Amino acid sequence: MTDSKNVDRETGSQLNPKFDSNGLISAVVTDDSTGVVLMVAFMDAAALQMTQKTGMAHFYSRSRQTLWKKGETSGHVLHVKELLIDCDQDAVWVKADPAGPTCHTGETSCFYRKVEDGELERIA
Amino acid sequence: MTDSKNVDRETGSQLNPKFDSNGLISAVVTDDSTGVVLMVAFMDAAALQMTQKTGMAHFYSRSRQTLWKKGETSGHVLHVKELLIDCDQDAVWVKADPAGPTCHTGETSCFYRKVEDGELERIA
Repeated sequence: MTDSKNVDRETGSQLNPKFDSNGLISAVVTDDSTGVVLMVAFMDAAALQMTQKTGMAHFYSRSRQTLWKKGETSGHVLHVKELLIDCDQDAVWVKADPAGPTCHTGETSCFYRKVEDGELERIA
Repeated sequence: MTDSKNVDRETGSQLNPKFDSNGLISAVVTDDSTGVVLMVAFMDAAALQMTQKTGMAHFYSRSRQTLWKKGETSGHVLHVKELLIDCDQDAVWVKADPAGPTCHTGETSCFYRKVEDGELERIA
């Protein structure tokens, strides 16, 4: 049973997300134009549904324990250009057209530092 | 206290990962040459340390509850070209040079299907 379910998940055309014990899947967002990874977050079933329905990325905030439309207050929404799902359907890749800086710090991407010899260095 | 800690995490040069209640951070891997998202997984402290130490991506397997060196059996290791961390230090971005297909299905990337009108379609 488990095996055939896994095979279906990997090869089938049915959207059947494998939510974890907290009801979440991982979500990575890249800028569709530049390929830069903008942010990594989580989606619950509602966030995934709203993302598909509205064409704008929604997430589940683990700290606030609520559905979260990215850019709801800042206006820096993420327009979905393409939505992909991985082999075992526990992660999605959102290729997006961002309306502004994605990071709440004002940086284009949340990934603005690299780990080098155990320390963090700001990248260009 | 919490605020200043958060600011340090966001602006400082100290590696101080914010592991969740399961001791994990998210990890997204892209192909350094093509920019394609290859996989999304999790790292615990040991996986992050081994990744830095060996220059090859290590993860924490939630299903097997163990440290996992990517490619240990297949040989399809992921050589780390650059390791970045996000604003609140709960996710890393591994830019990698993959030694072979990343997905256990034999696909180059685990993201080989897109979600279109609620169904999955294989991409080129």
